[in-house]
Amino acid sequence: MRTIISLLGSLLVVLGVMLLIPIIVSFIYQEQIISSFLIPALSSLLAGLLARLKFREEKITISTGMLVCALGWIVISAIGAIPFYLELDYSYVDTLFETVSGFTTTGITVFSGLSEFPRSILFWRSLIQWLGGLGFLTFFLVVTFRGQSGLFQLFTAESHKINMSRPVPNIFKTIKILWLIYAGFTIVEIILLKILGLTFFDALIHSFTTLSTGGFSSYDASIGYFKTAGYQYYHLIEYVIIIFMAAGGINFLVHYKILTGKIEELWSGIEMKYFWGIIAGVSSLILFEHYLHFPFEWSGLEKTFRTTLFQVVSIITTTGFGTESINGAFFPALAKQLLLILMLIGGCVGSTSGGIKVIRIAILNKLFNREVKKIYYPKRAVLPVVVEGNIIPDDEIFRIVALFFSWLVLILIGGGITAILSDLPAWNAFSGIFSALGNIGPFYFSVSKMQSLSDGIKITYIIAMLAGRLEILPIFILFSPQAWRD
Amino acid sequence: MRTIISLLGSLLVVLGVMLLIPIIVSFIYQEQIISSFLIPALSSLLAGLLARLKFREEKITISTGMLVCALGWIVISAIGAIPFYLELDYSYVDTLFETVSGFTTTGITVFSGLSEFPRSILFWRSLIQWLGGLGFLTFFLVVTFRGQSGLFQLFTAESHKINMSRPVPNIFKTIKILWLIYAGFTIVEIILLKILGLTFFDALIHSFTTLSTGGFSSYDASIGYFKTAGYQYYHLIEYVIIIFMAAGGINFLVHYKILTGKIEELWSGIEMKYFWGIIAGVSSLILFEHYLHFPFEWSGLEKTFRTTLFQVVSIITTTGFGTESINGAFFPALAKQLLLILMLIGGCVGSTSGGIKVIRIAILNKLFNREVKKIYYPKRAVLPVVVEGNIIPDDEIFRIVALFFSWLVLILIGGGITAILSDLPAWNAFSGIFSALGNIGPFYFSVSKMQSLSDGIKITYIIAMLAGRLEILPIFILFSPQAWRD
Ligand SMILES: [K+]
Ligand SMILES: [K+]
Repeated sequence: MRTIISLLGSLLVVLGVMLLIPIIVSFIYQEQIISSFLIPALSSLLAGLLARLKFREEKITISTGMLVCALGWIVISAIGAIPFYLELDYSYVDTLFETVSGFTTTGITVFSGLSEFPRSILFWRSLIQWLGGLGFLTFFLVVTFRGQSGLFQLFTAESHKINMSRPVPNIFKTIKILWLIYAGFTIVEIILLKILGLTFFDALIHSFTTLSTGGFSSYDASIGYFKTAGYQYYHLIEYVIIIFMAAGGINFLVHYKILTGKIEELWSGIEMKYFWGIIAGVSSLILFEHYLHFPFEWSGLEKTFRTTLFQVVSIITTTGFGTESINGAFFPALAKQLLLILMLIGGCVGSTSGGIKVIRIAILNKLFNREVKKIYYPKRAVLPVVVEGNIIPDDEIFRIVALFFSWLVLILIGGGITAILSDLPAWNAFSGIFSALGNIGPFYFSVSKMQSLSDGIKITYIIAMLAGRLEILPIFILFSPQAWRD
Repeated sequence: MRTIISLLGSLLVVLGVMLLIPIIVSFIYQEQIISSFLIPALSSLLAGLLARLKFREEKITISTGMLVCALGWIVISAIGAIPFYLELDYSYVDTLFETVSGFTTTGITVFSGLSEFPRSILFWRSLIQWLGGLGFLTFFLVVTFRGQSGLFQLFTAESHKINMSRPVPNIFKTIKILWLIYAGFTIVEIILLKILGLTFFDALIHSFTTLSTGGFSSYDASIGYFKTAGYQYYHLIEYVIIIFMAAGGINFLVHYKILTGKIEELWSGIEMKYFWGIIAGVSSLILFEHYLHFPFEWSGLEKTFRTTLFQVVSIITTTGFGTESINGAFFPALAKQLLLILMLIGGCVGSTSGGIKVIRIAILNKLFNREVKKIYYPKRAVLPVVVEGNIIPDDEIFRIVALFFSWLVLILIGGGITAILSDLPAWNAFSGIFSALGNIGPFYFSVSKMQSLSDGIKITYIIAMLAGRLEILPIFILFSPQAWRD
């Protein structure tokens, strides 16, 4: 219990410091809403420092580690929501929803009329996503590093086994490198978007939410805004965002390797092969189906290609930006199905993406191939599941299967709750929870519909967003009395 | 290759004999369409006997066994469709579709205006389902028994491991007992339905398709017909059918044990507990949701209860009879979701049901519980998945996982093909393949829509119906060059 409070204290201190940054934005734009940030910032700092002074950390068990992670993000979301609650005309549940959607990089919004919002509020909303993007991973690494050494292995097991071991032996150095790459990419995107005509503020906001695969925009029309508002280079803006969404969806250890000169890492690993393969395959299918419904014209090809690629990359990386509504006629039935499947898959491990993750789908696929192969081999033959020359131990496959299975079960439960507490049809009710659990953003009903849903559904989605981000198990631990006893 | 032809020969002989039975019906009703049955009957007998005379059986491998099973049902469906093709005004693909739908006990129909059909044709359509009900299991047992002894274990592995070993040591005696129980239940249902006012023909037809969980009816309105046609005891007719649908969905080895006096087998096994639990749970949820949308009246409660229970049992046992359309307002969004999930689950192993099967869902659930438990135990602790005191070996769990995973993949592929070759919306397109793969029958679009779908979709469904019935692997084998070489 002491360790839990002490670890939460550290998180509160970080949150408190972060809450001071929007105050600068508030100064620049002379918005004079400083107190809305200062109150939660100081409370958070005070509580955090007190907790750190009063309680010492001890070695913790796996279950305590998971409990801290789940609890930590709930607590800082509860505090991070305060500026929204104080400045905007929304209920606390709505602002909490928006904050959880931010930290988990989900990007489902219950706010509308965004262009009228104070700049500092929009900035905070984006910053939350940027912090959440690598924050979940970082906090998990820190928490587990302080516990048993086996814990770190637990987390990195999958990436470790497929030859993606830590780039450097020291865990804090690893974290530092990850944040440097993350910040570096963000700065490059800001510069590119600025060059292409965005205001510095817009470039900043959207770069924060691209690399974090968060997907919050400062416009109700998302990235589609830049076209309708008449930006000259809107095509290029979209391509730049496609590239950086993809960057956010790729394992940051792969980025590290690429930056250290091993460019082939971009396509040589099994997860990257699947990642590019899925993007190419799904995009082709959507293009094909699109032209079954619309007449083909050379002049429109670039636009169709760009819009398709944008949406496919946006969904598989779980960013959720849009230039064309996935509810509309542009994406016919097959496209709608494919995009829903992408929501389940998600991006790569070690990225800022949500979802089940590409490598796990690849391993499940290998498992199936193995089972088919078994038919042709003698009964006692041992046929391991091999990925990149390494045997995936049974324990790891079972963990993946359990994750996959519980993912489906949570979708069913969440879809059921949505169906019963709303007037949404069965299919649309499922799509919302696909999106929340996968930390994606878009779904098959309107944003205004989402905003009008009952608090029961919103709380269900809050739990789903956290469950998806934490890969489910910690959320189960949260509801387990056994974990709290330790 | 010789063995394959010889085994197919046996199947053709059986089919030939069966094709002679409708001729009796044709005589009784003086329909004079004897040649439509006689031609395929004699061809089948002749070809079958020739094959048996010319070719000898040898020991076969697992893959050959699976190949024979897949091929066998395709061949006899192709011949079994001939009477429909000769007598009715449908394309060959349509009649093949109907025949595969029959033998696999799926029950999706592309025929309409059933009450105008010749009696012998309706009889053949029902008989096909009755034969398919236990026929798939029987043929598999026979084929595998003649091969390696390990093959039989492969099939019965799951039931065996959970303490449901063969009732008697001799395989042919087992098969005989299964068919006796099956026939016995069918006769009891015929008598009960006759007492409740059905004509002998209707009682026969519907009993055939209840116990086989096939779901073909001789009326377009399915079981709903008996109410609208003014049958006095239509309530009781529905309750009787509920009971016998449930009987068809339960492992026939459980029936055997019950009949030998162990009545507690009806609820004591883990699969039975899940089976009754799911029926009770889902029915309660649907009732609850129904009354959120409709005013509660005591007078209507029995009707609502009966209709709900009927549909839940009809879908989980994969029978597919209906008294109320699952597309209508009676079943709101949550109900529609739940019924779709039931389509995935299906009935018990060793029953005539399709679907993934209840016991496998139970084992996947146990697997998830084990993974959660692992967090609290030391890293090296061995925590097996235990069902009824027996450890489920990893090999078996992997097989179940592979089945589950390939089931989902086939749904996605089939749903995609349906979406692209039709104008159905995404959700409805999925529901058809859920139904075909699970051998269920109903789906979320109209029967007339199904009839109008393109041949491409119908052929996809034919493959899906066979894949579901054969539990997928044999269908993969069918497309594998390696299996044909042996
Ligand atoms: K997102
Ligand atoms: K059926």
